[in-house]
Amino acid sequence: MSAPEPLRDPASLRRLLSPRSVAVVGVSADPIGFGARSISNMKNFAGPVWAVNPKYAGQELHGYPCVGSIADLPEAPDCVLLALPRTGIMAAVEACIAKGVGGIIAFASGYGETGLDDRIAEEEVLRETCRAAGLPLVGVNCLGIVDHVLKAGVTFMPEYPRMTAPPGGVAITSQSGALGYALMQAAERGFSVCHMTTAGNATDLDVCDLAAYQLTMPECRAVALAVEGLRDGRRLALLGDAARKAGKPIVVLKLGRGEAGAAAAVSHTGSLAGSAAAWSAAFKRAGMVEVEDFDALLETAGLFAKAPKPTAPGVAIITPSGGAGIMAADHAEAQGLSMPQPMPQTEAVLRAAIPDFGAPRNPCDLTAQVASNPASYDACMEAMLTDPQYGCAVIPVVYSHHASTQLRMEQLRPYAAKFGKPLIIAWIPERLE
Amino acid sequence: MSAPEPLRDPASLRRLLSPRSVAVVGVSADPIGFGARSISNMKNFAGPVWAVNPKYAGQELHGYPCVGSIADLPEAPDCVLLALPRTGIMAAVEACIAKGVGGIIAFASGYGETGLDDRIAEEEVLRETCRAAGLPLVGVNCLGIVDHVLKAGVTFMPEYPRMTAPPGGVAITSQSGALGYALMQAAERGFSVCHMTTAGNATDLDVCDLAAYQLTMPECRAVALAVEGLRDGRRLALLGDAARKAGKPIVVLKLGRGEAGAAAAVSHTGSLAGSAAAWSAAFKRAGMVEVEDFDALLETAGLFAKAPKPTAPGVAIITPSGGAGIMAADHAEAQGLSMPQPMPQTEAVLRAAIPDFGAPRNPCDLTAQVASNPASYDACMEAMLTDPQYGCAVIPVVYSHHASTQLRMEQLRPYAAKFGKPLIIAWIPERLE
Repeated sequence: MSAPEPLRDPASLRRLLSPRSVAVVGVSADPIGFGARSISNMKNFAGPVWAVNPKYAGQELHGYPCVGSIADLPEAPDCVLLALPRTGIMAAVEACIAKGVGGIIAFASGYGETGLDDRIAEEEVLRETCRAAGLPLVGVNCLGIVDHVLKAGVTFMPEYPRMTAPPGGVAITSQSGALGYALMQAAERGFSVCHMTTAGNATDLDVCDLAAYQLTMPECRAVALAVEGLRDGRRLALLGDAARKAGKPIVVLKLGRGEAGAAAAVSHTGSLAGSAAAWSAAFKRAGMVEVEDFDALLETAGLFAKAPKPTAPGVAIITPSGGAGIMAADHAEAQGLSMPQPMPQTEAVLRAAIPDFGAPRNPCDLTAQVASNPASYDACMEAMLTDPQYGCAVIPVVYSHHASTQLRMEQLRPYAAKFGKPLIIAWIPERLE
Repeated sequence: MSAPEPLRDPASLRRLLSPRSVAVVGVSADPIGFGARSISNMKNFAGPVWAVNPKYAGQELHGYPCVGSIADLPEAPDCVLLALPRTGIMAAVEACIAKGVGGIIAFASGYGETGLDDRIAEEEVLRETCRAAGLPLVGVNCLGIVDHVLKAGVTFMPEYPRMTAPPGGVAITSQSGALGYALMQAAERGFSVCHMTTAGNATDLDVCDLAAYQLTMPECRAVALAVEGLRDGRRLALLGDAARKAGKPIVVLKLGRGEAGAAAAVSHTGSLAGSAAAWSAAFKRAGMVEVEDFDALLETAGLFAKAPKPTAPGVAIITPSGGAGIMAADHAEAQGLSMPQPMPQTEAVLRAAIPDFGAPRNPCDLTAQVASNPASYDACMEAMLTDPQYGCAVIPVVYSHHASTQLRMEQLRPYAAKFGKPLIIAWIPERLE
């Protein structure tokens, strides 16, 4: 058995994935065309941007200079986005190779994912052409990339300039374009994302290459990865090594876990999904954190991006609701986490602070009496966080008291700083703020 | 083996659980006291409300007339809330029995959940006293009840009058008070809840009695039930029978599934939690829908409260995102749902409407081309919903296009009416509106 293909050298992807100049090929005057929507997403980008379309050569198109061909571009762009149908791709790729561009992105669908032999062959030729020329390709059948540091929305997804969150924290790589962008929209509610790539058919670059690049970004503190399939699953181990070396966690969601989902994955990105158990084992070996739910993907990556490393394996659960404590304990146990009982001196403090119908244990139930006696919260936080068995604390916030919930957060904040342990606030109320 | 104790006759609980008059015993002038907070939650209630406190007899307290004792009340209230510590409960209960009130709610903690023999015995005596007198009791160690139809917030939880959602739809019963109220807060974002009860230690009424009452409420279309433990698990089967007879679904979440959670449940409400598998089997036999996640509890109950019954077992999945289709198929398969492939005439319509790189199958992937060709959405919706194999359709909305997502919802709405099949819109984007 031969070794897996090594991951692409991140340095060779820098021009394409964090571009300083961008050309969009196939921009029409129609504002809802894929090219027009893409170039409009570059509004807040600082570097040069060109439209390419022979019909509008020498004019302005959507506020950008338009040239007649790739050859006519005044310089070789870092990133060339091909907003062209499949039939126009190969000629454009050859022009890009001749020009010496940094890399290309192709939205075009209709390749191997159709299951048609001639289309599979056409995609093979495209791969070989790009690889022979050393021209990295994102796609085909993808949705583009976003560099949120550079404000480069190299994607046809609408309204990228609305996303104004401070860049940093989490990098997203998704095989599915739409799901990648759905995650990216967290930036609209202030969630810090630095980068997004969508692999589509992974004709050239697959999610492992793309995520490995993101690990080298200084702004990236964690990677959120959504994958349907890989030509060679052993590349996950290479990516795991890169993550370990970078000291950055990868959180991963596998799509197409069941039979029906796996069958759908074939016609989506031509991916063979394989057995869910085999994938889970591979993620584990690669040191990645697998989640089973889309909602958990960005949430978990975001937590890792923010939280310091736990100082011990034990988890402390502290809450004014017995029910929430039970729920947290259920989840912790399901994840195989250790929840040691407090040391005697810790327990003594808890016992003194909590009513006799509370629980001076782990999970620690302060009971609703905490409303009349906020000092008991402080005493228990201090005691549990001092206990060296606990590397982090989970604090379910059970209901939202409009007048005081924000104050409670302020009350908790200093403890995270004082003990250098992550405080994980679990927001439970059905009210959303 | 004797038969399980029958469920309490709902008619005998009507005065207590849907009260037309309420007295709060133990209201002090301090606005943050449990009694004061409770009586303030009755602001929008139409019936008479009295405070009971000998110190303020004959005065007004928080806007309500105050009498010196339960005996002094001008009439026997439907519901008497005892906002008293444990030591004051028994005397008040005896006064309530003498007065002929409809039922009582006791917040007081410190009974069996402490694990102390004398406290367990004290709770036994309280139970026997209430039962001998035919006086129904909610609690002890509970958080009260809410009748959202009557705007009765008989709970110390803050700011109930802020909840202005139209009453109806889902009734909530929770053993944990705080989790019940966390669910109830969905009413603040417009979610229709008609009723909430919290069982606490279930000294007299347990979650089965409380949920069985809710099934008889005309406003109730589904029950969301959160349970830690039961003295007699066989009562679940009785509740299941009642739900079947009422034609209303019960969605249930079991807390304390693992060992650590089960241990915590003992000190929370004195409940023996038992094995998760045994509970799941009991829920299934009782015809209840079990969820494993708190988030899913109200969401699922709310769906059942709104949606018509599916006309066939098959699920259709229709989406512009291949990735979202795969995800939906994964979830459907994990739930054991059937996803038949379209009939030939259905497939022919899909094939004509969708590009060749889409998927004219189930899940049906319209691809991002739907943005340029909205008519393909209509054609596929029409075809899939006409197919008699499909009893409902799942429609993942993958990203939020500010300019058009709302229009898409309007485009989908007529199909639900036309085919009488539930359309389940799964909102995936990380942007929340």
